[in-house]
Amino acid sequence: MFNAKAYSAISATSPLASTVIARRDPSENDVQIEILFCGVCHSDLHYSRNEWSDVMPAVYPCVPGHEIVGRVTKVGSAVMKLKVGDLAGVGCMVDSDGSCPSCRAGLEQFCANQVLTYGSADKHLGGVTYGGYSESIVVDERFVVSIPANLSLAAAAPLLCAGITTYSPLRHWGVTKGKKAGIVGLGGLGHMGVKFAHALGAHTVVFTTSPSKVEDALRLGADEVVLSRDANEMKKHVGSFDFILDAVSADHDINAYIQLLARDGNMTLVGAPEKPLSLSSFGLLMGRRSVSGSPIGGIAETQEMLDFCGAHNIAADVEVIAMQQINEAYARLLKADVKYRFSIDMASLKAE
Amino acid sequence: MFNAKAYSAISATSPLASTVIARRDPSENDVQIEILFCGVCHSDLHYSRNEWSDVMPAVYPCVPGHEIVGRVTKVGSAVMKLKVGDLAGVGCMVDSDGSCPSCRAGLEQFCANQVLTYGSADKHLGGVTYGGYSESIVVDERFVVSIPANLSLAAAAPLLCAGITTYSPLRHWGVTKGKKAGIVGLGGLGHMGVKFAHALGAHTVVFTTSPSKVEDALRLGADEVVLSRDANEMKKHVGSFDFILDAVSADHDINAYIQLLARDGNMTLVGAPEKPLSLSSFGLLMGRRSVSGSPIGGIAETQEMLDFCGAHNIAADVEVIAMQQINEAYARLLKADVKYRFSIDMASLKAE
Repeated sequence: MFNAKAYSAISATSPLASTVIARRDPSENDVQIEILFCGVCHSDLHYSRNEWSDVMPAVYPCVPGHEIVGRVTKVGSAVMKLKVGDLAGVGCMVDSDGSCPSCRAGLEQFCANQVLTYGSADKHLGGVTYGGYSESIVVDERFVVSIPANLSLAAAAPLLCAGITTYSPLRHWGVTKGKKAGIVGLGGLGHMGVKFAHALGAHTVVFTTSPSKVEDALRLGADEVVLSRDANEMKKHVGSFDFILDAVSADHDINAYIQLLARDGNMTLVGAPEKPLSLSSFGLLMGRRSVSGSPIGGIAETQEMLDFCGAHNIAADVEVIAMQQINEAYARLLKADVKYRFSIDMASLKAE
Repeated sequence: MFNAKAYSAISATSPLASTVIARRDPSENDVQIEILFCGVCHSDLHYSRNEWSDVMPAVYPCVPGHEIVGRVTKVGSAVMKLKVGDLAGVGCMVDSDGSCPSCRAGLEQFCANQVLTYGSADKHLGGVTYGGYSESIVVDERFVVSIPANLSLAAAAPLLCAGITTYSPLRHWGVTKGKKAGIVGLGGLGHMGVKFAHALGAHTVVFTTSPSKVEDALRLGADEVVLSRDANEMKKHVGSFDFILDAVSADHDINAYIQLLARDGNMTLVGAPEKPLSLSSFGLLMGRRSVSGSPIGGIAETQEMLDFCGAHNIAADVEVIAMQQINEAYARLLKADVKYRFSIDMASLKAE
């Protein structure tokens, strides 16, 4: 065991504050990583404030962070895929049973025994796992991915959650050249969705409520931008989308978007609104349309996504902050006041 | 043009009553059918009472009925697929544009220019199309199907809507041997869903709120019956279904069923509850599950379904009524007091 500086919340109502946590010494399959940047995901905020208590009650102290990039500082004797000095990433999971049908299919995100990067039972040290708001982490190599050298590390960090969460459904539902894809909500997830849909070759349409975001949407790769409150604009797109990625985590009218799907079109939700959404069955019936959900992605697909990002020079648009600014960043996150993801520079924590 | 006896509603609040309507003389592609039986679909009631005014406002007088079986009495000179004396069926559509991508794919149910069996603009005679609560009908042969000779005609009639509406999504979503399929709601649609899922070889589970329906569900082909109000029973099935057919047209909790889907499982709604349903996005996210809708099926698939019924000796469980009992039948339909579909014997209308 060794000590690592970190930031934690000690209750649902406490701000995050400096602390010291224990990390395990790497066993033969483990990789020890010096964390250089960690993205700030909405989940970090929801979880640390126990806002998902129904489905995922928080355990304190809580060290959030699952968009981790850094440099390998130590590897266990059996580690094959990384060596000291490599750039490495860790996303939302740090372990799974490896034997269930989902794991065998490379879909560890659906393993019933997955261990989340923070808040899951820690079988090594007891207590719960601690996430990336920390100067280091130790993870089984199966859950460590390689970061392409050409990407900015600060901008690459959000790929580990926002990136894979949007890339995976776009791939799963066959978004490619010749398809029309919509992205609803231009935030941390949505802006990655635009970049990926565009890079995958689809005709990419961004829906936004904010006229102020139109220019940015085009810059990010949108072919068209639709102001979703303009009923006439919306009507022009009825029945035309092969796929829509809905990245809105607030309550909103999904039926307005379902109407825009073509026959057999799919809309995938990647946001998790607190309250149930209102679903009209007519909209689904009329075109054999479907609504589905998708969480992150498997490890193999995460690596595929990172390689795709390397090849297409894609990363998140980030605002780099110091670890000490995290509470202020959360407050801004609640106002959607970030373009488009905060990325914590861990040098700030090491300097404390 | 010739006259045909029929039953119609003249307003949303009028009971159905005897009338005489005009039918066109068959053109070269038309088939004239003496209607022998017509099933009574919930849609007939909803439409004739204008309960779907938002999406499908009713036009009066309204002659419902789209589960039509009868005998061919006349054919146009170019008609190839049927001859006088053949048993024939007509479902929910009597025409479509034939040229759109959906039509070209044999999915006329998604044609934007489809002509419904009742209530659509009638391009031949003006006014609107009149359905199967009538002694005869004239339909383009493209929309006429053959009825296998071994089926009871009274019991075959509901196959034209209730049958294809349940068969189509079961086939579309790959329900077959080795799969686990659930059927929610044991009414006109649901009881056909049970028969089909069983005949397709799936492990078939019926969900019902009524202990009184357990025995019937088993008789219809269910391998298991789950009382959906028993939380412990429901819990045993979490994450296990490849497919669930939801045939409930009243408001109900779809999230309880979504939880029962396996990874990538689909639940298809074939009922059309008046009010929007409440959808929790978490349930979808956690297993990349999807909820979709499905309306009837294309003509080729309707014929495939009828052939399947012929081969497996499947038809609806019906209660045969006289045309004059239709208003009473509607009242009983509202109480779900029918096992499982009314089928109108048109001899009663001819005898008027």
